[in-house]
Amino acid sequence: MTKFDEATQAIRVDETTYDVCLDPGYSIGGPLNGGYLMAVLLRAVVDASPHDHPVTTGAQFLRAPRPGPAQVRLEQIKAGRTAAMTRATLLQDGTSFIETLVTTATLGDVTPDWTDRPSAVMPPVEQCVVLPAPKPESNMTLNAQMEMAFDPPTIGWLDGNPTGRPEARAYFRMAEPQDPDPYVLALAVDALPPVVFSAGARGWAPTVDLTWHLRALPAPGWLTLLGSGRMISDGWFDEEVEVWDSAGRLVAQSRQLARVGRG
Amino acid sequence: MTKFDEATQAIRVDETTYDVCLDPGYSIGGPLNGGYLMAVLLRAVVDASPHDHPVTTGAQFLRAPRPGPAQVRLEQIKAGRTAAMTRATLLQDGTSFIETLVTTATLGDVTPDWTDRPSAVMPPVEQCVVLPAPKPESNMTLNAQMEMAFDPPTIGWLDGNPTGRPEARAYFRMAEPQDPDPYVLALAVDALPPVVFSAGARGWAPTVDLTWHLRALPAPGWLTLLGSGRMISDGWFDEEVEVWDSAGRLVAQSRQLARVGRG
Repeated sequence: MTKFDEATQAIRVDETTYDVCLDPGYSIGGPLNGGYLMAVLLRAVVDASPHDHPVTTGAQFLRAPRPGPAQVRLEQIKAGRTAAMTRATLLQDGTSFIETLVTTATLGDVTPDWTDRPSAVMPPVEQCVVLPAPKPESNMTLNAQMEMAFDPPTIGWLDGNPTGRPEARAYFRMAEPQDPDPYVLALAVDALPPVVFSAGARGWAPTVDLTWHLRALPAPGWLTLLGSGRMISDGWFDEEVEVWDSAGRLVAQSRQLARVGRG
Repeated sequence: MTKFDEATQAIRVDETTYDVCLDPGYSIGGPLNGGYLMAVLLRAVVDASPHDHPVTTGAQFLRAPRPGPAQVRLEQIKAGRTAAMTRATLLQDGTSFIETLVTTATLGDVTPDWTDRPSAVMPPVEQCVVLPAPKPESNMTLNAQMEMAFDPPTIGWLDGNPTGRPEARAYFRMAEPQDPDPYVLALAVDALPPVVFSAGARGWAPTVDLTWHLRALPAPGWLTLLGSGRMISDGWFDEEVEVWDSAGRLVAQSRQLARVGRG
């Protein structure tokens, strides 16, 4: 069991309740990463489902939970032959912190009937930028859990050279060697810096709603994260992330609507 | 009050319950259109919200409801200063047919800080294809409620000339003159024929999950719907729809995950 598997464990109490323990190692400067929290929720949902994989997850982020004990409460909405639907809520002290609707199904290992190309071309991983470890006082503990190598222009904002459009692209893998799986993908779709940083914004950009789709089971190796946005307006922005695996397959698609930070 | 306003009316019973009447005029050959059903749900959500607009809607489609009386049950999850979150369920005879999580907020009439261009260029509306009215026995009553003018290649599948990739593009407006509003947009994001028809698939393509974001309030006039997909695999496909208004603004973005039809 890897550290990530352990940090996302969900222990069955009864058919509608799972105990979890939110790990302080997934902090993004205070709040815990939303992708990590989705992975925790999805462990409980899939454990209780007749199907194997979380194919769609729609999450509303209400409040930022603290590290420590929490619960996942499940409500089975429909159990179909092809797909099951579940409502899952992350609770701390009886208060809801994240509300989700999840569809589970069992994906086969098949060749797609049709697939588009990636929306951007990445340079080879050796030409990408690995960021130095953040200062301990920043409390960005998430960064130690994963390795990311950024497409250089999309991280230019760090040195005062934003590209002027919302984008972020990087190779991604867990720091502790582990093959990617649907839970790693839940983390990956929310692992990039907010795409608005590249358009000149700063500060914590809280996600309001994040929906992602698992499209195929990822092959071992690096994942490629291609992040972009279509509009920044009235304090809101969208962030789309495509995840491609090392075999060149589209394995996940996400879109979030978030608030532009005031930092 | 237009026919569409009337068909989407939600009458408050108490703070958690609204009565609605599902109109047989929004049928797509038997099942009612999912966008129409979302519009009905959203009427109730917004009526009960301190905010004016449904900015994110995530919907799971469990079963196809019948025309006739139904209820919307609301659960207020969070009422914040910027945004409120609501769970809304469409019920018939006590059974849940659609589960949604909705974020409401109040959008201003502002110029975007940054916006991308449309993902495709449409020919002028005069060069687009208006389809003949469907035969009454097809029970495609939805088509009479709206006017659509299709980008010719993307409707070639009707004459046996699919483009070979998932796509659909059209101008859209209500048949009864009415300025577009967020409820018309809820209909619009699910109004195109399934994008997989253009890739050669046929038959009813049931939506499993549809999430859409209202990005701005639309100007009067035609809407432009740009539909595409990234992958068709293992019986699942994604459909993205961008909606642009007559002033050239991105007003809505949707993604659905649906099953390829067996027809």
